[in-house]
Amino acid sequence: MRRVFVVGTGLTRIGEHWDKSLRDLITEAILMAIDDASISTKDIEAIYVGNMSSGYLQGQEHLGSLVATWLGVPGVAACKVEAACGSGGAAFHQAYLAVASGLYDCVVASGVEKMTDAITSDVTSALIMADDQEYVAYMGATFVGLNALVYRYYMEKYNVRQEKIAAFSVHCHKYAKLNPYAQFRREVTLEEVLNSPMVADPIHLLEAAPIGDGAAAVILCSENFINRLKLKREVEVIASTLATDSISLYDREDLTTLKATRVAVEKAYKIAKVSPRDVDVLEVHDAFSILGVIHLEDLGFARKGEGWKLIEDGEVEVDGKIPTNLFGGLKARGHPIGATGIYQVVEITRQLQGRAGKCQVSDPELGLAQSVGGVGGTVVINLLKRVR
Amino acid sequence: MRRVFVVGTGLTRIGEHWDKSLRDLITEAILMAIDDASISTKDIEAIYVGNMSSGYLQGQEHLGSLVATWLGVPGVAACKVEAACGSGGAAFHQAYLAVASGLYDCVVASGVEKMTDAITSDVTSALIMADDQEYVAYMGATFVGLNALVYRYYMEKYNVRQEKIAAFSVHCHKYAKLNPYAQFRREVTLEEVLNSPMVADPIHLLEAAPIGDGAAAVILCSENFINRLKLKREVEVIASTLATDSISLYDREDLTTLKATRVAVEKAYKIAKVSPRDVDVLEVHDAFSILGVIHLEDLGFARKGEGWKLIEDGEVEVDGKIPTNLFGGLKARGHPIGATGIYQVVEITRQLQGRAGKCQVSDPELGLAQSVGGVGGTVVINLLKRVR
Repeated sequence: MRRVFVVGTGLTRIGEHWDKSLRDLITEAILMAIDDASISTKDIEAIYVGNMSSGYLQGQEHLGSLVATWLGVPGVAACKVEAACGSGGAAFHQAYLAVASGLYDCVVASGVEKMTDAITSDVTSALIMADDQEYVAYMGATFVGLNALVYRYYMEKYNVRQEKIAAFSVHCHKYAKLNPYAQFRREVTLEEVLNSPMVADPIHLLEAAPIGDGAAAVILCSENFINRLKLKREVEVIASTLATDSISLYDREDLTTLKATRVAVEKAYKIAKVSPRDVDVLEVHDAFSILGVIHLEDLGFARKGEGWKLIEDGEVEVDGKIPTNLFGGLKARGHPIGATGIYQVVEITRQLQGRAGKCQVSDPELGLAQSVGGVGGTVVINLLKRVR
Repeated sequence: MRRVFVVGTGLTRIGEHWDKSLRDLITEAILMAIDDASISTKDIEAIYVGNMSSGYLQGQEHLGSLVATWLGVPGVAACKVEAACGSGGAAFHQAYLAVASGLYDCVVASGVEKMTDAITSDVTSALIMADDQEYVAYMGATFVGLNALVYRYYMEKYNVRQEKIAAFSVHCHKYAKLNPYAQFRREVTLEEVLNSPMVADPIHLLEAAPIGDGAAAVILCSENFINRLKLKREVEVIASTLATDSISLYDREDLTTLKATRVAVEKAYKIAKVSPRDVDVLEVHDAFSILGVIHLEDLGFARKGEGWKLIEDGEVEVDGKIPTNLFGGLKARGHPIGATGIYQVVEITRQLQGRAGKCQVSDPELGLAQSVGGVGGTVVINLLKRVR
């Protein structure tokens, strides 16, 4: 396999962009990434677009061609990649393979979701498309309801009090305050989280990622391309892995672990010849506070049932053992579904480049981004390393 | 790049499968391909699913995880690939890159679409998602209406009478009669085509591909994998290319040519070091009779304005210069959107293996499959060669 590098990043602020359509958002993010990489649109050979619900919410598919058109580069290879909430991670994985294969030298991995101009019940229906429509959604389950089952089961199994888990939301908001692209740039207290309205017992409103519009993009390229354009070699993708699990909870051995995370991350650690203790900066897919905790365990940073201790002990802070979600995570940076996996890679890349501003980790070498589809039906792990 | 081989094919009959859901269809096709390759489900490392409208019509996304679940292989890498009507071709392209990259040794490229259990107006809305929703569909254009513009313009520009073009439908039906998997296993006369109801002037009902349910799958693998499992080396993918063009007609230099076809096929011919005269068997994306004619020209088999002569002269027949759509094409084999590009590869593979039954071309070596998204916003070209 050829080596693959990240040479440019772009993103929009996440929020209610009623003045911008899906195509405006993604074009803005890709143009920023192209500019950041010091390349031109003519250099782009392929574009991958991570998106889940454009068909359902905008009546628009064929995003590959749409984005190529709007970017002014018809002719390039382009398509949409979908893996529910993990669509961004999956798009990155395909872009990685495209460069690694040798067919393409310069590829865009992007993601976009436009959710706030639809009525709320439509968005709820769009989100449950990530689960099994015929056997689960049809019976009345909502996406937050399924995660509430996981939350309740975790608390019972490991005898953990809710405030230990809800603290993950407080952590995310604290860092989102420092991120100019975040949807919620303000802190919340634990009391506010636990007193916020109940969405699906035991998940409070402030324990759930918000609905938002946003787009992000990164430029991936080969060593040849870097040399030809005399670009800086700063960040390399040293592993990209994708694993599935049963699409819903009905077929899981254990509700408190995402097996797909374990499969994907073990493969990634093996390929990159690293272990959890080598990871300097982490982005996890905290669609709900409980998932943040579970991910810390499944990725190998804590024993099962003890992920919450990393939060309590301050180990997920910027100066802790495993700095996590330092741009606010899904909870507070925001979660424009198909774009989220790309936001994570943008954030890891900027950390490794020393461009993370007020939430910069000291001299990080290795970053891990975890992107999750549905209730763990898909997990993508991307490991990025600073190149000396 | 590593060499990539096709070692198994599977498909369902296309039609109104009211007794089978989307997951039943695709599982059936993939299991047939696995069986055909003489491998087992445990050998599968990744699955690509080409599909366009499952979100809109079934309220079901996350097909990668769904298929992995239903196939009984959770853990494998899997995702959905979407490029409108070219989704199947695009899924094949990604599967090709996945094996070529070296990360995966055995990959499924599959496609599925379930269209007949939705109301017709919903299917019409789903199909126009392939075009520009905000600037074209919103104004009232339908997918067939846009192709009618192309048809009318072609007849005017090249002074060609409609019966010359409509003959493409007669050709497709003649061969579909021999294909047990085809949706319409019966011949039609030119008179029947020209007297069938008008859908969008000048396109008659019998010049338009039907709505149908279906799924198809192929197994792609590396040379290592073939050697390890002692499989037969019969068919190799010698080029796979994807190109976009503006998503709608508003930005085209010429309505009578699909520039994306030209870009993709020229790249494919160059990579494989072949020319149109080397192609022994062809599958083109004849969503409408006019497109069959235009594709013959854009792929290099006829001069512009003269594609229809190949039909009139019998050159697209099984014993002609360029045997085309010998399983019935989109018109009569059927066109389950995201599956169609995979059906084409199944058909080319079976031709190269000498397994095409009554429509077998004599001793073919090189086959070309063209998969198109929208009104030419995406075109995928896959070149397959018999290995001696």
